[in-house]
Amino acid sequence: MLFLGEESNPKFAKTATGIHYWRPELCGGVYHFAKSTLDYGLPVMDVQEAADSGLKTMIIGVAPPGGKIQDEWISILTEALRAGLDLAAGLHTRLNDVPELADAARTHGRTIYDVRQPRAQYPVGTGRKRSGMRLLTVGTECGVGKKYTALAIEREMRQRGQNGTFRATGQTGIMIAGQGVCIDAVVADFVSGAAETLSPDNDSSHWDIIEGQGSLFHPSYACVALGLLHGSQPDAIVLCHDASRREVIGLKGYVVPELAHCIEVNLQLARLTNPNVTCKGVSINTSCMEEDAAADYLAETSGKLGLPAVDPVRFGVRPIVDEILNTSEPVARPALAIENHAES
Amino acid sequence: MLFLGEESNPKFAKTATGIHYWRPELCGGVYHFAKSTLDYGLPVMDVQEAADSGLKTMIIGVAPPGGKIQDEWISILTEALRAGLDLAAGLHTRLNDVPELADAARTHGRTIYDVRQPRAQYPVGTGRKRSGMRLLTVGTECGVGKKYTALAIEREMRQRGQNGTFRATGQTGIMIAGQGVCIDAVVADFVSGAAETLSPDNDSSHWDIIEGQGSLFHPSYACVALGLLHGSQPDAIVLCHDASRREVIGLKGYVVPELAHCIEVNLQLARLTNPNVTCKGVSINTSCMEEDAAADYLAETSGKLGLPAVDPVRFGVRPIVDEILNTSEPVARPALAIENHAES
Repeated sequence: MLFLGEESNPKFAKTATGIHYWRPELCGGVYHFAKSTLDYGLPVMDVQEAADSGLKTMIIGVAPPGGKIQDEWISILTEALRAGLDLAAGLHTRLNDVPELADAARTHGRTIYDVRQPRAQYPVGTGRKRSGMRLLTVGTECGVGKKYTALAIEREMRQRGQNGTFRATGQTGIMIAGQGVCIDAVVADFVSGAAETLSPDNDSSHWDIIEGQGSLFHPSYACVALGLLHGSQPDAIVLCHDASRREVIGLKGYVVPELAHCIEVNLQLARLTNPNVTCKGVSINTSCMEEDAAADYLAETSGKLGLPAVDPVRFGVRPIVDEILNTSEPVARPALAIENHAES
Repeated sequence: MLFLGEESNPKFAKTATGIHYWRPELCGGVYHFAKSTLDYGLPVMDVQEAADSGLKTMIIGVAPPGGKIQDEWISILTEALRAGLDLAAGLHTRLNDVPELADAARTHGRTIYDVRQPRAQYPVGTGRKRSGMRLLTVGTECGVGKKYTALAIEREMRQRGQNGTFRATGQTGIMIAGQGVCIDAVVADFVSGAAETLSPDNDSSHWDIIEGQGSLFHPSYACVALGLLHGSQPDAIVLCHDASRREVIGLKGYVVPELAHCIEVNLQLARLTNPNVTCKGVSINTSCMEEDAAADYLAETSGKLGLPAVDPVRFGVRPIVDEILNTSEPVARPALAIENHAES
């Protein structure tokens, strides 16, 4: 059940929108105050109806500016716990820190999931190479489609029968995947270790498709981006970008880097933990352009960079997945006898 | 009062050694169990004698492997609180999390300082340029003298009448300076913001000498190093290195970078928040060599890099401070009339 509060601005309902878009099969209804005009085509119900119809969890699908829990939410959230629903939220302030909610959860035997809160004590990163293949989406900036691109690549891979798993690193991603690590909420010493934990050893042909965070060129969040890059040990990166973005949002004077330069710096730093990393394409939000102009721009960008360039929403990510799967088959190992011979 | 427990290995008494070396005027006595053979030339006393002689705080000066509080310490630490001493520690496990100690502190009105614990809610970094000058010590690896070098530069500057302030980013540094931010204990999202807070706006000729942490080439801690680099906005960096170190400690296969390459990458990434950053020298632990060989090696390194190269313990940091102060005088501002004219 998606909780929308009184929100009517889709910009502040990204979590609800993301979950509904990527995992519609998990969404059974919405709760909103009369004022909300958001419509996901889902039945509107009260919490008792939700519980009676078999829904398990009420997810806070909106994030008001500041990420605070609104006072007027408390009574309905308490009622949800009483009706037998669990609660999940990815706000900066924790539901578990609201005494009424913590008490009600205890009384009614329900669970409150604050997904921004690290759920484990992560280890320090080791830099040890893990088995399996990994792709990380990186960005020229924040909010340029790193989560969307990773989920689109996972979906495209699965449609082709390729074994791939989306690995979530932010609150909405975690709610979509049902697990993950809110990497920017981890203590700095353990960021690369948490990223290592997120994509453990796997089959040699399995792809972890890891949701990137921040950007190496963002003065607030480069630390998060680098720890995630090192811990992910990506074999492949895909650079995400918004064609309308010239300046880093909210940071006057900080320009968004050139695509080629941004790819180069990401590869340079990624080589510390995976010397074989390559870039498999760029994924660009072209919503600022007409469709024809967007297609031209992507073709031109692709030509300049020598890489697939897509708008994942408008045109999908097929060329990027082609690039990944064509060139990334695990190198055939020499026959054992030869290997032993070479070592003897 | 420096608490040494039963430790006899100077390697595990770095905090006591650092405080005693850099701030001997703050050290009035030591407490140790009979087994310890460490000797700082300070009177050995019990906690009542310490309190009677005017000492204020018992500092845990040792860090056993794992950073845990030893069971056999509890009764003497409790006794110290009862005698009227505060406690300070930079261990991974917090003294405040030991119920006996927390209770005793409350009962006797004493304070327990767990200096690894962030004491404030830090803001997100803004990248906004601050006034004053800043130097950051960076490293080819961990444990290569970044704190020592920063403190030596501060001391040398002050001896020359230059206004300079050591800014601590680790537990021992914080105990030496009496303030600071344990930067690797900050949540990733706020690392560059915490680093910005650490060296606020200052006089245009004032130097903040900031203790570096980790290394951009360390797969566990590069995230910390980059957040600190961006938030510090250094005008100058000094690269620290240990001449005996070939491989990153504990991480087989990770080689320590070449000095020139390490300088270049630090400058490249630092330019995001301060395009005018330069390197003012390298500070090398040469204790693996005889003194003559060390002098030759430093001269050769200096020639290759075109920068001062010193061993701060053996030969001091004068050439680096010469380099900083010769070339870093604040640019003379145009006369006000001209400035106004230009703007009109």
